[in-house]
Amino acid sequence: MDLHLDLDASLPLNTAVADAIRHAIRTGRLRAPGPLPSTRALAAQLAVARGTVTEAYAQLAAEGWIVTRQGAPARVARDGDGPAVTPEAPGPPRDAGAPRWDLRPGVPDTTLFPAPAWAAAVRAATRSGPGVLGYDDPQGRPELRRALAGYLNRARGVTTGPDRILVTSGFADALALLATTLCDLGLRHIAMEDPCLGIHREVVTRAGLTIHPVPVDAHGLDTTALAATPARLVLATPAHQFPLGATLSPARRRKLVAWARRVDGYIIEDDYDGEYRFDRKPLGALQALDPSRVVYGGTASKTLAPAMRLGWLALPPRLVRPVADRVFRHQSPPLDQLALARLIGAGHYDRQVRRTRAEYRRRRDHLIAAGLPLTGIAAGLHAVLPVAGEEPLIARARARSLALMGLGPFWHGPPRSQGLIIGYSRPPVTTAYEALDHLAALVNARR
Amino acid sequence: MDLHLDLDASLPLNTAVADAIRHAIRTGRLRAPGPLPSTRALAAQLAVARGTVTEAYAQLAAEGWIVTRQGAPARVARDGDGPAVTPEAPGPPRDAGAPRWDLRPGVPDTTLFPAPAWAAAVRAATRSGPGVLGYDDPQGRPELRRALAGYLNRARGVTTGPDRILVTSGFADALALLATTLCDLGLRHIAMEDPCLGIHREVVTRAGLTIHPVPVDAHGLDTTALAATPARLVLATPAHQFPLGATLSPARRRKLVAWARRVDGYIIEDDYDGEYRFDRKPLGALQALDPSRVVYGGTASKTLAPAMRLGWLALPPRLVRPVADRVFRHQSPPLDQLALARLIGAGHYDRQVRRTRAEYRRRRDHLIAAGLPLTGIAAGLHAVLPVAGEEPLIARARARSLALMGLGPFWHGPPRSQGLIIGYSRPPVTTAYEALDHLAALVNARR
Repeated sequence: MDLHLDLDASLPLNTAVADAIRHAIRTGRLRAPGPLPSTRALAAQLAVARGTVTEAYAQLAAEGWIVTRQGAPARVARDGDGPAVTPEAPGPPRDAGAPRWDLRPGVPDTTLFPAPAWAAAVRAATRSGPGVLGYDDPQGRPELRRALAGYLNRARGVTTGPDRILVTSGFADALALLATTLCDLGLRHIAMEDPCLGIHREVVTRAGLTIHPVPVDAHGLDTTALAATPARLVLATPAHQFPLGATLSPARRRKLVAWARRVDGYIIEDDYDGEYRFDRKPLGALQALDPSRVVYGGTASKTLAPAMRLGWLALPPRLVRPVADRVFRHQSPPLDQLALARLIGAGHYDRQVRRTRAEYRRRRDHLIAAGLPLTGIAAGLHAVLPVAGEEPLIARARARSLALMGLGPFWHGPPRSQGLIIGYSRPPVTTAYEALDHLAALVNARR
Repeated sequence: MDLHLDLDASLPLNTAVADAIRHAIRTGRLRAPGPLPSTRALAAQLAVARGTVTEAYAQLAAEGWIVTRQGAPARVARDGDGPAVTPEAPGPPRDAGAPRWDLRPGVPDTTLFPAPAWAAAVRAATRSGPGVLGYDDPQGRPELRRALAGYLNRARGVTTGPDRILVTSGFADALALLATTLCDLGLRHIAMEDPCLGIHREVVTRAGLTIHPVPVDAHGLDTTALAATPARLVLATPAHQFPLGATLSPARRRKLVAWARRVDGYIIEDDYDGEYRFDRKPLGALQALDPSRVVYGGTASKTLAPAMRLGWLALPPRLVRPVADRVFRHQSPPLDQLALARLIGAGHYDRQVRRTRAEYRRRRDHLIAAGLPLTGIAAGLHAVLPVAGEEPLIARARARSLALMGLGPFWHGPPRSQGLIIGYSRPPVTTAYEALDHLAALVNARR
């Protein structure tokens, strides 16, 4: 028999022969139980040493592609033949024609990322010695937990210690971990603000929790409505309600904590942008009102970049072990953790917060100067603009290559109001003000 | 009333005053509903401006610690008072007196980590521009998926493409993801090798799967016993059974794939150390026998370091979407992914594999030269030494500051044999041979 094999010249000969035969079997040119040429014949045909072919056959036999037996010709294996040649799976959907300006919320301006400082911090971390490269400390590197406990106390008034910090790979992953743990502890119902982030709804549903939406008004989460649910667990954004932008009032803060004590439950405080208050010193974290009832969650996704995959929880003492026991491995690579600890320790992190805060404040002020009647407090990476008919406006913006997002997707059920969530932090500084001007022109033309 | 407050001189005055009052409330020195001094009185007492105290009170009121009302003295808030001052939670258990030599399995020699190459690759990655710093591509950076598809085909014979690769944060996390996905797809039973890694048992149990242990012999997983289980899913280590060290025979490879087709199920191939065959070219991955039935899983935890938190799956086409849809965010930080793509592209990764393979081979040879009758193939980061009475031997080693591990913890049920799993890769080069000599002396003295 004559077998046409193209040999890859970049490979050792025996590997090239094996590869070519594997390819022939995979593509169906060689089918089971079809015999293979003798090693002698194939060697002659390919002008290679017989030993080369023998080695290739031995390799293929060991891998299960072919069957060789003393005194009989080698043949294609019966069960291992013709593995389905499967088409490439469709990849994730691609943005067809990305918009020129993008003001959808949830992402900081990644051109503000302190790349040189980060690279230097990682380099320094690689010099910490081999002791940091193992599987230890799934709760997080002690260096970072110490740095975070200090930072969170100083910047956000969080009452915690390194032993109560858990380093995570961002808030969504932390929420999944918390939801699973608390569900196993018997807390099967969770109250969530309405509106809230869709991915959080998905995460807690996957963990097996039942969601009870609770309305939000200008003072934040409605604690009376909360108390009417069967939940003993609530996910809240006290500093800056996402997406509506209210801050939880002092009276409601006290009521919320009193509720958690009464029902013997927990509050998960999602402090996603607590560092970004523009008009005054930010309120301290709700967590300080009762560190035994509030799980505080923060992230570097907004201050540095989502790509960091770095977040943290400050846990009530009695939740530390149940949550940490569920973490099999480090949630975030230790070298990255050490790098963040260095950024915090050297003051880079605080400078980054101040620098980005100043920039985002300018962008929000720009919208106000353009006459847009924003609601919500002067804070964060997004603003809310109430509009009637958000969908037509979004469509008109899209036609002008401006990507916008409305409140629509954030409601649990039917929308109670309409508006745009303007993620002014997203565009790079080079086009941000242009984008904001386009938005203002579009909205103002309509009024 | 006289309130002794110690002000932190490093803080702005109003913050220092607020902090001191917060501290007094937290520690119970100030109790609800006890009145606070008037702003005028406290200002005089502390020798600060009255406005400073007013600001501090406003901040505390906004945070819910105190209540201020026009014309009435400020008082400690009733619900927010006295948050339980909770003791520090106990941290994770510390190694009391770490052993001088450690030969427990599962970890590579992290002193061989190519730190300068990694740091350079991360620095280069930070220069890729802000586009890589967002939330995109939870399946993994395209650059890394391309590099991995090429590497896996070249080094392990894996038949895949970038669209079928999912970048993970290590194999345990990948297994958790797979187990959850396949459980939801109706595959509720999983067959696992007996013995196997305990953490894998924990991960699949947490995902809701029922485990069916399948014995392992010198030819690897017993495929006849497998077929007798109700499972349509199996987790296997064909290249180098963990921990016993057999390689799955060609006949069983074919039978295993035939089984998966017959039951319409899947094989999860844990190729944790497939690059480390010392005596011959390693067998190609089982995956190539049927890429539509085998999920291939690999990791950089052994080749680089566990601290990388980098792993990968090569998925059957029809599993790509169900698995990827469950990944909310990048499993591994994109900058680290880009760094690994660079290491692979520049040949650093292959060099690292060759370099560590040569070193681990020397260590295994050292044990053989010392007369230890190792079982299992000449491969990997660990060797198996059958012994009668593993526990007493481990205890004697511990007394000499040598940490060892027996087969005991790896069995699903009662042990079917006894032995040591010698993780010769773990110690640093500086003490590895010393550690191996101590082990050999201990074992040989006993015979």
